[in-house]
Amino acid sequence: MDLSRRLAAEALGTALLVATVVGSGIMAESLTTDTALALLGNTLPTGAILVVLITILGPISGAHFNPAVTLVFALRRDLTPRDAALYTLAQVAGGIAGTVVAHLMFGEAPLQLSEHIRTGGPQWFAEAVAAFGLVAVILAGLVHARNAIPWLVGLYITAAYWFTASTSFANPAVTLARALTDSFSGIRPLDAPASSPPSSPARLSP
Amino acid sequence: MDLSRRLAAEALGTALLVATVVGSGIMAESLTTDTALALLGNTLPTGAILVVLITILGPISGAHFNPAVTLVFALRRDLTPRDAALYTLAQVAGGIAGTVVAHLMFGEAPLQLSEHIRTGGPQWFAEAVAAFGLVAVILAGLVHARNAIPWLVGLYITAAYWFTASTSFANPAVTLARALTDSFSGIRPLDAPASSPPSSPARLSP
Amino acid sequence: MDLSRRLAAEALGTALLVATVVGSGIMAESLTTDTALALLGNTLPTGAILVVLITILGPISGAHFNPAVTLVFALRRDLTPRDAALYTLAQVAGGIAGTVVAHLMFGEAPLQLSEHIRTGGPQWFAEAVAAFGLVAVILAGLVHARNAIPWLVGLYITAAYWFTASTSFANPAVTLARALTDSFSGIRPLDAPASSPPSSPARLSP
Amino acid sequence: MDLSRRLAAEALGTALLVATVVGSGIMAESLTTDTALALLGNTLPTGAILVVLITILGPISGAHFNPAVTLVFALRRDLTPRDAALYTLAQVAGGIAGTVVAHLMFGEAPLQLSEHIRTGGPQWFAEAVAAFGLVAVILAGLVHARNAIPWLVGLYITAAYWFTASTSFANPAVTLARALTDSFSGIRPLDAPASSPPSSPARLSP
Repeated sequence: MDLSRRLAAEALGTALLVATVVGSGIMAESLTTDTALALLGNTLPTGAILVVLITILGPISGAHFNPAVTLVFALRRDLTPRDAALYTLAQVAGGIAGTVVAHLMFGEAPLQLSEHIRTGGPQWFAEAVAAFGLVAVILAGLVHARNAIPWLVGLYITAAYWFTASTSFANPAVTLARALTDSFSGIRPLDAPASSPPSSPARLSP
Repeated sequence: MDLSRRLAAEALGTALLVATVVGSGIMAESLTTDTALALLGNTLPTGAILVVLITILGPISGAHFNPAVTLVFALRRDLTPRDAALYTLAQVAGGIAGTVVAHLMFGEAPLQLSEHIRTGGPQWFAEAVAAFGLVAVILAGLVHARNAIPWLVGLYITAAYWFTASTSFANPAVTLARALTDSFSGIRPLDAPASSPPSSPARLSP
Repeated sequence: MDLSRRLAAEALGTALLVATVVGSGIMAESLTTDTALALLGNTLPTGAILVVLITILGPISGAHFNPAVTLVFALRRDLTPRDAALYTLAQVAGGIAGTVVAHLMFGEAPLQLSEHIRTGGPQWFAEAVAAFGLVAVILAGLVHARNAIPWLVGLYITAAYWFTASTSFANPAVTLARALTDSFSGIRPLDAPASSPPSSPARLSP
Repeated sequence: MDLSRRLAAEALGTALLVATVVGSGIMAESLTTDTALALLGNTLPTGAILVVLITILGPISGAHFNPAVTLVFALRRDLTPRDAALYTLAQVAGGIAGTVVAHLMFGEAPLQLSEHIRTGGPQWFAEAVAAFGLVAVILAGLVHARNAIPWLVGLYITAAYWFTASTSFANPAVTLARALTDSFSGIRPLDAPASSPPSSPARLSP
């Protein structure tokens, strides 16, 4: 498949994923004062759109939407280092575009800085667990249940929103994009480890 | 397939879809004062019924239930202009019938005028995003995952209810029908762009 | 398939369905004062168990669990009148057993009389709409998507809980069983038309 | 398949299952005061992760994650007594590890003693019903719908969380692990019958 088409699929998919995460978070927190209900209103749309995006864009680019996933495929040599770097750029750019789109849909400033604080030892441990689980699901799915991967990832993230204290995405591109919204799904920029070295295992766990 | 049977399928499907949207909205707002919970009680039935209706009526008419979708298929020349016009009429008539059925099931006046205001630049932008996404999901689904389309559309609309400020349907027939209820899912008639020219791209985004 | 095994499947399936409907209703109303949330806690288990029961018992008895569905198959001559009568008996007995099981699981009196009032013209109209939809889903599913029927029925009932004012089951056996519980999912006996003549179309709509 | 790999799959799967059950329970009760909403925030992640874990680990170990299920397969002679005993050990160890992981992710003490009381005749009856249903779903699924088993179990447990007063798992390994957390999903140790004889039918119903 043509590389530019694959990069467009990664950028578009990450943008729609982030627009859903941020947009549903804004919607949810504007409608209720119960935080569990807001998280539910954030979880269901995210799980649903993941199934959709992975189904329709998977055949084009593999539907990573996530530098951590791209890194794993690069380490497995399924992707050249150059393509992996371009995938990551496309994901980061798409994620930021997704935040801008969500803000504009709700009439807010295009880019903001999150004041939400999500950090500390337990949070990092939770991110490591969530990232381990996500990679395990994808790699095992490729072996045992290739056609089920869109559902597996959607359901896994549905669970991970609730079992990690950080409402994990185990996804640096989404984390960076979420640092740019001061809404329900935001993360304080200082806490988003965007400057960690790309080849470090920690890169798997923001 | 016989045209009259296809038109009946479009009318019936749009009627049941709108009856679910409006009926579950009336039910939800009568049971809770939490708007996020009411939206959840509106979202789940809508996503569920879309999977059902597209599965059982798709083989008959294609299960558009939506003039915007019909327009796209007409532009692709999968449908003649005459058939597209008849599909649209069937959808609009079915949608209005669906609102009447929902109101009668809850003992309300058959037709009402919505007082809900959902308009403005961000809302239109959100509708454009939602319509773009819906069309992309359907067209990509036709290429990559034809059998999954009922689930893809149901899940996409589940997400779109929460990521657009307008709880989008990206569907002029449903929007018109929703303008005729003064309940949770209603839209103020002035804000439903039913008079926009059918061939304009804006037609894709109510 | 051996008739006694089919009858056992109908009785067991209806019992587990009713135990889920009544049990989740008792659980939900004991945990919250928000009625929409209680209905959600009643809807999700019911939709989920329907998918399960129809998948595992469908190959044995057809998984009707519903005299209205059995009547339709009898009218189509897929079932003899005698077998249909026995199916109905099995469903009614199973449904009552399901209510007893649910009550015992929650330490309540085995049989009660519902004080919930759910009747009136709109309710009957809603039941007729819900029953029409259920029969349409099953018959169209048999033609177009036989393997998807467990999901179609589970999703349809998920929607019908919310779009009908009566949280419909369109199911006389379940309605009778629900008349025997004075909990969230109960129905006042006088309002359960168990005495309506079996061949009347009204039989489709309790 | 290599036994040590199968045992690792049982331990890992039970650990991730328990981490999700306990973690989502901690998250839910920290976000809301409405118990039905907390149970919903506990139910959805559990059902979702079950579908994922059974899909990816089923081809390796059978994905029991449950001594009661292992016992049934041993009684059917699908598993030798020695392998069944090792499976059970792996599940118990994995379950405890899962509780520890959940506590560490939320910055809590690794092991606690539950103060939640869930016992009495009705609770035991509910566990027996839930265990009977789980075994029936698995055995019937193996005959009629092998590929659907991950979904059937996930949906069944979703329903069983709500129709049993004990938010049942019908799973001694999970029950033991839940006795070690003093959070939403905890069970008081005295009420967890970990010392009941392994061959007794009561073993199916903790």
